[in-house]
Amino acid sequence: MPGMMDTILNLGLNDKTVKGLAAKSGNPRFAYDCYRRFIQMYGDVVMGVQPRHETDHEPFDEVMSGLKKELGVTEDNDLTAENLEELIKRYKALIKERTGASFPEDPYTQLWGAVGAVFNSWQNERAIIYRQKYSIPAEWGTAVNVQAMVFGNMGDDCATGVAFTRDPANGEKVFYGEYLINAQGEDVVAGVRTPKEIALLAEEMPESHKELEKVRRTLEKHFRDMQDFEFTIENKKLYMLQTRNGKRTGLAAVRIAVEMNREKLMTEQTAVLKIPAESIDSLLVPEFDPRAMKSAKAIGHGLPAGPGAASGVIVFTANAALREAKAGRKTVLCRVETSPEDLKGMIAAEGILTSRGGVSSHAALVARQMGKVCICGASAIHIDYEKRTLTAGKTVLKEGDYISINGTTGEIFEGLIETMDSEVKRVLSGKLKPEKSDTYQLFATVMGWADKYRRLRVRTNADTPEMATQAVAYGAEGIGLCRTEHMFFEGERIDYMRQMILATDEVERRAALKKLLPFQRKDFTGLFKAMKGFPVTIRLLDPPLHEFLPHDDTTRRELAEKLGVTQETIVERVRALHEQNPMLGHRGCRLGISYPEITEMQARAIFEAAASLIKGKNPIDVKPEIMVPLVGMKAELVDQAAIIHRVAKEVMDAKGVKIDYQVGTMIEVPRAAVTADEIADVAEFFSFGTNDLTQTTLGLSRDDMGGFFDDYKEKDIYSQNPFATLDRAGVGTLVRMACEKGRATRNGIKLGICGEHGGDPLSIEFFHNVGLNYVSCSPPRVPVARLSAAQSALKELAALKK
Amino acid sequence: MPGMMDTILNLGLNDKTVKGLAAKSGNPRFAYDCYRRFIQMYGDVVMGVQPRHETDHEPFDEVMSGLKKELGVTEDNDLTAENLEELIKRYKALIKERTGASFPEDPYTQLWGAVGAVFNSWQNERAIIYRQKYSIPAEWGTAVNVQAMVFGNMGDDCATGVAFTRDPANGEKVFYGEYLINAQGEDVVAGVRTPKEIALLAEEMPESHKELEKVRRTLEKHFRDMQDFEFTIENKKLYMLQTRNGKRTGLAAVRIAVEMNREKLMTEQTAVLKIPAESIDSLLVPEFDPRAMKSAKAIGHGLPAGPGAASGVIVFTANAALREAKAGRKTVLCRVETSPEDLKGMIAAEGILTSRGGVSSHAALVARQMGKVCICGASAIHIDYEKRTLTAGKTVLKEGDYISINGTTGEIFEGLIETMDSEVKRVLSGKLKPEKSDTYQLFATVMGWADKYRRLRVRTNADTPEMATQAVAYGAEGIGLCRTEHMFFEGERIDYMRQMILATDEVERRAALKKLLPFQRKDFTGLFKAMKGFPVTIRLLDPPLHEFLPHDDTTRRELAEKLGVTQETIVERVRALHEQNPMLGHRGCRLGISYPEITEMQARAIFEAAASLIKGKNPIDVKPEIMVPLVGMKAELVDQAAIIHRVAKEVMDAKGVKIDYQVGTMIEVPRAAVTADEIADVAEFFSFGTNDLTQTTLGLSRDDMGGFFDDYKEKDIYSQNPFATLDRAGVGTLVRMACEKGRATRNGIKLGICGEHGGDPLSIEFFHNVGLNYVSCSPPRVPVARLSAAQSALKELAALKK
Repeated sequence: MPGMMDTILNLGLNDKTVKGLAAKSGNPRFAYDCYRRFIQMYGDVVMGVQPRHETDHEPFDEVMSGLKKELGVTEDNDLTAENLEELIKRYKALIKERTGASFPEDPYTQLWGAVGAVFNSWQNERAIIYRQKYSIPAEWGTAVNVQAMVFGNMGDDCATGVAFTRDPANGEKVFYGEYLINAQGEDVVAGVRTPKEIALLAEEMPESHKELEKVRRTLEKHFRDMQDFEFTIENKKLYMLQTRNGKRTGLAAVRIAVEMNREKLMTEQTAVLKIPAESIDSLLVPEFDPRAMKSAKAIGHGLPAGPGAASGVIVFTANAALREAKAGRKTVLCRVETSPEDLKGMIAAEGILTSRGGVSSHAALVARQMGKVCICGASAIHIDYEKRTLTAGKTVLKEGDYISINGTTGEIFEGLIETMDSEVKRVLSGKLKPEKSDTYQLFATVMGWADKYRRLRVRTNADTPEMATQAVAYGAEGIGLCRTEHMFFEGERIDYMRQMILATDEVERRAALKKLLPFQRKDFTGLFKAMKGFPVTIRLLDPPLHEFLPHDDTTRRELAEKLGVTQETIVERVRALHEQNPMLGHRGCRLGISYPEITEMQARAIFEAAASLIKGKNPIDVKPEIMVPLVGMKAELVDQAAIIHRVAKEVMDAKGVKIDYQVGTMIEVPRAAVTADEIADVAEFFSFGTNDLTQTTLGLSRDDMGGFFDDYKEKDIYSQNPFATLDRAGVGTLVRMACEKGRATRNGIKLGICGEHGGDPLSIEFFHNVGLNYVSCSPPRVPVARLSAAQSALKELAALKK
Repeated sequence: MPGMMDTILNLGLNDKTVKGLAAKSGNPRFAYDCYRRFIQMYGDVVMGVQPRHETDHEPFDEVMSGLKKELGVTEDNDLTAENLEELIKRYKALIKERTGASFPEDPYTQLWGAVGAVFNSWQNERAIIYRQKYSIPAEWGTAVNVQAMVFGNMGDDCATGVAFTRDPANGEKVFYGEYLINAQGEDVVAGVRTPKEIALLAEEMPESHKELEKVRRTLEKHFRDMQDFEFTIENKKLYMLQTRNGKRTGLAAVRIAVEMNREKLMTEQTAVLKIPAESIDSLLVPEFDPRAMKSAKAIGHGLPAGPGAASGVIVFTANAALREAKAGRKTVLCRVETSPEDLKGMIAAEGILTSRGGVSSHAALVARQMGKVCICGASAIHIDYEKRTLTAGKTVLKEGDYISINGTTGEIFEGLIETMDSEVKRVLSGKLKPEKSDTYQLFATVMGWADKYRRLRVRTNADTPEMATQAVAYGAEGIGLCRTEHMFFEGERIDYMRQMILATDEVERRAALKKLLPFQRKDFTGLFKAMKGFPVTIRLLDPPLHEFLPHDDTTRRELAEKLGVTQETIVERVRALHEQNPMLGHRGCRLGISYPEITEMQARAIFEAAASLIKGKNPIDVKPEIMVPLVGMKAELVDQAAIIHRVAKEVMDAKGVKIDYQVGTMIEVPRAAVTADEIADVAEFFSFGTNDLTQTTLGLSRDDMGGFFDDYKEKDIYSQNPFATLDRAGVGTLVRMACEKGRATRNGIKLGICGEHGGDPLSIEFFHNVGLNYVSCSPPRVPVARLSAAQSALKELAALKK
């Protein structure tokens, strides 16, 4: 934004000085290019032109294109000094035409003209609309920086360069950077001349190099962080142009923080705050083998939805993924979008690629939940199920061809690129000894610090003992969300589930549920065992029933035969279950209210599993927390809680055992937040389902926002994807309200969050601030959440000290 | 609920007294029947049995059924005195078995047993769950009424009866009632003996009749309302058993209030409060000719969704309705459910009947909006489009057969029943002189009072000059919601609309919009004229675009030919526009943000229409209020408002006229309510879209709730349909919050409501209390809203006086 940023102009050039510079430097083309750039920048400011996105036509660009067309050249660099002199004339004419005033020769007039233009821009229409949009008070005003210039391009005793005090790629403590002799800053980044490594400067200009090494130490000591700085040497004299904290990779961030703490440059607390929480992820996800990457051919990109690298043969169906997995082949499941029916295939596949759907689509949610590599919404990829092809531009890949995807960056590659587990993961899964891994030591140090400072507990969203075990290795302190619906897709379960849905009365429904009971009991037994006494929150059946019914003819026919009903019966039931807006339809506790026997079966499975473990040969502590989804009215929870308490009593009486359980609810529709005081009468805990709460609060379907999300990003209406980072002003206000109302009724009510936001650092800070007891996220996000929780606590501490 | 109601038992019967009563009355069967009823009631209380819904099996009913089966009789009345003696034995055995205590012979033991049982019921499990559900404090406790009995069945100088102080059907001031000689209260309502008209009592028992006439006057004078009372004459002595305000028809309510005011029995204010606001409706809707109703054959029922009576031939498609209408035949459009494509047919039809969808389905919304008779969700009716039949039980009706529907009651009749416009409507539309209509005089008096006391303004939801004119006749003071999408379905407009949607770039889209502009301008001109200077709120395009595209092959083919594109192009676009949850998808202001040219065209049409009327030969005052739908973020409104203000300036500059307009927003997603302070920075008015706000706040799709709404009603989870009456605790809290936040930012911001709730008396009271400026409802609801608004103001006044 104009007035908001300082605008840097190299003032002082005019026809006369440029002529002198051209003669002196022996490079007139360069002098005129500097001059035309200066005029353009000056012109942009006084004409009120703002750099916009690429498709916009800046007025000076148009002049430039016009000239190039006349001259028949394509590159800016093809313009000669004479061409540039002509261009400068036209630039000046444009400024005269647009502002009514000529481009001034006098440097002071230039200076005051530019300063005045920046100040005036504070009141232009775009600035006013911008301020209105972001609630920026008009009285803040704007500022202009005025600085003298130095020149690195005045001869061979001049140079310019950029450097880092440590290696930004791996964090190692080495001086890292590059420079050019007789050049200006722009030349280093422009890529026309190849800069030299900073070490060479020790030979070419030993004095300056020595001085730089000293500056490097001074900067780190002063800023107590790795610095990225720019310098210019003008006639042997070293000038520092600017310094700032250097950008770095995740690994570098972790290493620098740990080592600077060892070097006493940072306290533990500062070190914790200095590591972007996301960095931890890069120590955990599988990676492409760096050697193999050198020959990789990128064919497109999508939204990075599940971090890590995956490579395998292309399959288009869940069945193909299963078949290939059985044959021992790695696959990437490529779908237009995924549905619960694809789950088996998603589990079997190495990675998932979809051409439709955002970062909160079914594919993305499931992938993150399972720690699966995933790219979604790769809209330029065309998937043809009929022809079994995947087309990206001119590249056409067939089923069985290799493809590789990087879910951290969203890049898609043709062919096989070898991947490897990260060192940390190999240590955590017992495949590598801790002392053998340098990065594991870094990881363990940071996690130790995090656990020391955080107040928030971190739980995980897990449905299987495998996921639960992984999460515990990552430091999870309980399950915050076990989605029971995933348990109904495997093997014969789905048949009984469908039988239950197709039942025409309660008797039939109970018969089908009776068959599901032992499976559920076994699932919960496994989960309780894996969690070793940590609390386990189990959500009762949530999705609309139609998600369990087959939608293609073949599967319908098979099902009809199995169940001994006509295919029409199934078609008719699918039709009857069809909903306009299933997200707002017959799901969540509404199912349990229509079919209390479902709630009863699930409660029974939970309590029977718990009872047998508590009374087992090797007694295990079990703390089930039963969570009723989509509650909006207290009466809904009263109804469901009554069933759960009754079944609990029946099981405890029958087995002669006391189970320490709780009944609570998801807060995932605004009404639940608004009436949380009433609901807390009955609920022993709240867990915020921020995915659905975001959908309902914003009136925004995450499955459908792809159709207009780009327009919103372009117009800067959503500064962040509200499904990735919690919308504090909207959804956050409701969360805060629910916390306050919940506590008012039930002092000390347990509060958690199990939506996608539970693994997002910015959101975690908010959850810390409103005083939740825990966040719950997918297993691979647990370390990130632990670190974020510690950072939130330390930030709060710092704010209190102020 | 048990403890909550007083439980009335006729205590004091036992084996001995019953034997005496049997001998004395000469009717032993009657005596034993009294006795077994008494034992049953006593048993229910001491056993803690509560009257539940019909499918429950009460224990005494089971005993009764068992005995009847043994004896081979079907009716209770077929049981002899001896049979009843046996039944009594079994009843007593049941009580002994269940409570461990025998049925007591001693009246005092009976009394204390019953009293104790009622008190104990306060702590039973069902009562506890009930209290928890409705937040009733346990310390309230319960009460028991104890009363002496009188007998109207002790001989021919005894009688019992019920009477009204005025005619409850039409409100006329006549003594109205019925009685039976030698009978008890139950006999009058049981229908076994036919009661006599009260006038006959003057001959049979002149003294008692005279006394009753006196009581009648005393009661009215004391209660100042029409009374419904019960009396018993025991050996010539008159006893009054109870009196209460009498239930009455809408017409009676109005007449009684007006006449009691004339008789100085009620003040104007009381009279206003005494008329249930809904009553006004019955003075306005078309009615079945009472003579024709006598031979009507009911074949089913559905949800009453648009009041009034309609009769016509069955049609299953919009085209058939149009065709029949052109041929001058009245039709009832029968659909499984309706969609915007059916709009033309819905306009042409006399009434609408759907087998699916709730009272807030598309059919119901459109019907009420147009004042069309409508029954929806008649789930027992089966409509077969292929066979062109409508089946209700054993009745099969074909297309072309007559059907009649009563949208006030939800009743469906076979065949033609003549209907007629109400008198009031004939007066308001100039077809009848006011002085010729007695009911119009009543209506006008009540409306005059209402306007005197109300503070809320009443606007209407109207899209056409016809609807607007009707609404003004009904007293509307502006348009609160003009839905512009309805304007795009007529004639060639839909083609241009579809062209716009199928456009692949902005240029094509603008070309199509240019063709739509003159139509829109004409629409708005008509509307502004009809509203005669009243404010007109116009909502910009709101529904998802796919609603405008054809979904059947024939229409797609026709469209493809018209537009010169392939049918696949259309299919592909329909596919691309398909959404999982269209309610939460690309609609509302999201359309205007993706396609600013749509907003621009609509704004231009509004301002050009306004300018030409203001500058016209007969200048008309025009106050357009432009409403941006589905705003959730302030930035959305900033974006859209900027376009509107720019176009306004362009039109005003070009035409040299100043237009007094406002830009505001719908508050219809929770985020808008929560951040109303930010939004009010830009919005000059808020209009609550309570339909969508209810959907999003409750996470409840009104189109899909039919699937489980019955379960919710049965379990008493929704005490009211939240789409008919505003959910105060949930949605209401957000409305109140938005009002407060909106006013905090913009003092005196105009606040209105344009959802379905704008015509609902209970909701109107809430809107009055939060201080809205106006409610907006469909034209036929305007009088109801005026009366409700007055009642709300008077109730507030009364509360303040306390």
